Amino acid sequence: MSRLLTPDALEAAIRQVGAERYHDKHPFHRLLHGGKLDRGQVQAWALNRYCYQAGVPRKDAALISRVDDRALRRAWVHRILDHDGALEGKTGGEDGGIERWLVLTDALGLDRDYVITMQGALPATRFAVEAYVAFVRERTLVEAVASSLTELFAPSIHRERIAGMLESYDFIGERAMQYFRRRLDQANRDADFALAFVKRHATTPEAQAAAVDAVRFKCNVLWAQLDALHHAYVAPGLVPPGAFRPEGT
Amino acid sequence: MSRLLTPDALEAAIRQVGAERYHDKHPFHRLLHGGKLDRGQVQAWALNRYCYQAGVPRKDAALISRVDDRALRRAWVHRILDHDGALEGKTGGEDGGIERWLVLTDALGLDRDYVITMQGALPATRFAVEAYVAFVRERTLVEAVASSLTELFAPSIHRERIAGMLESYDFIGERAMQYFRRRLDQANRDADFALAFVKRHATTPEAQAAAVDAVRFKCNVLWAQLDALHHAYVAPGLVPPGAFRPEGT
Repeated sequence: MSRLLTPDALEAAIRQVGAERYHDKHPFHRLLHGGKLDRGQVQAWALNRYCYQAGVPRKDAALISRVDDRALRRAWVHRILDHDGALEGKTGGEDGGIERWLVLTDALGLDRDYVITMQGALPATRFAVEAYVAFVRERTLVEAVASSLTELFAPSIHRERIAGMLESYDFIGERAMQYFRRRLDQANRDADFALAFVKRHATTPEAQAAAVDAVRFKCNVLWAQLDALHHAYVAPGLVPPGAFRPEGT
Repeated sequence: MSRLLTPDALEAAIRQVGAERYHDKHPFHRLLHGGKLDRGQVQAWALNRYCYQAGVPRKDAALISRVDDRALRRAWVHRILDHDGALEGKTGGEDGGIERWLVLTDALGLDRDYVITMQGALPATRFAVEAYVAFVRERTLVEAVASSLTELFAPSIHRERIAGMLESYDFIGERAMQYFRRRLDQANRDADFALAFVKRHATTPEAQAAAVDAVRFKCNVLWAQLDALHHAYVAPGLVPPGAFRPEGT
């Protein structure tokens, strides 16, 4: 990319990355949303995805830790609260997204301590999550913000997931889906803010290319997690040593 | 330190560091609180200290970015809000400590943009602040938490400062002191939490020694800032190139 794009053309380039590489296109998600997985496979997905949920507030804190602009820090800190929840008295004591994720893993019959310690997670899941935290800590601020922009593509996958999983799995109820219902609003608001930031601050061809690459990187972070799940729990079904094994396998 | 200390002996060792090295013993603070500085020197102090205030939420975010324990993250995130303030609607839109610090620099007649850009700050101030952020990002979690423990010693210096500055300087009023009044409560609460954490988690002689060293390090961060101020604005009064020069000097 050698010419400076207009902000709208930059947005289009970012959205094109999603159209090509967002993990809604991964075969594992097709299976998950289409009701093609058994309970053990859905458990494996939920406990691995917990690692990602738990990494997100650390990623957002890493971003804040490098921002000199107080207005940006103030606009970003609610993401930490959205995921971690807030203690009683400060913001009303909301539970947060991680707690809502644990409601899902509870509903799937997973032991909460086992989930939280991440002992059964696939190493590849954890490597992908840590790569994301490191990226946000080390790259330019525009890249760090841009890497959040997969949220632009999230609401449609969440809607598809809620409908598909509720319809397909008798072991999934409305309560277990509350994480995704809540993210429908949060992700829209957050993505709008981050997209405006990137469009305003990526003001050279190099910065714009890096911002698009950051979205590509983040798609890879998400995709790699599903590849690892697919390999371990679908085909060929080769669970690495120490990782979660569904009952009866 | 080769034997394991009891938690109370560890606390005593940490408090001993404060008794020996906290910056309330620095000659610059004696001058500041005793009414011995002129307005230009107080301006220099306030605009340099702004760098430290602005670094603190980044330091706290750096800490959160490495914490896997959600309960600890939830207990720490209010520090970011305390300093940065919170946007309207999420926690009532409080201004935060940095805004209160800017009320002080306003009252001293400093231009707000000049303060926020930190252009006039001493390089040594900024180096000390960045060393603090890096320490919290890179050392063990116990050391990172322990480095906050100078807050144990802060309330007495704040009380001394409020009384001394209000009495001594006709250019300082009650409103300019609101930062310190507010910190009286916040620092107590935060220090109690951090001290309990360090006493509980520093469970080897090496970890205990490192925790005490972290408090020493932090005292050095504070002390070095006053050394630089003293050298530039008191004796010998050698202002480095590009740094703030009080009017008429």
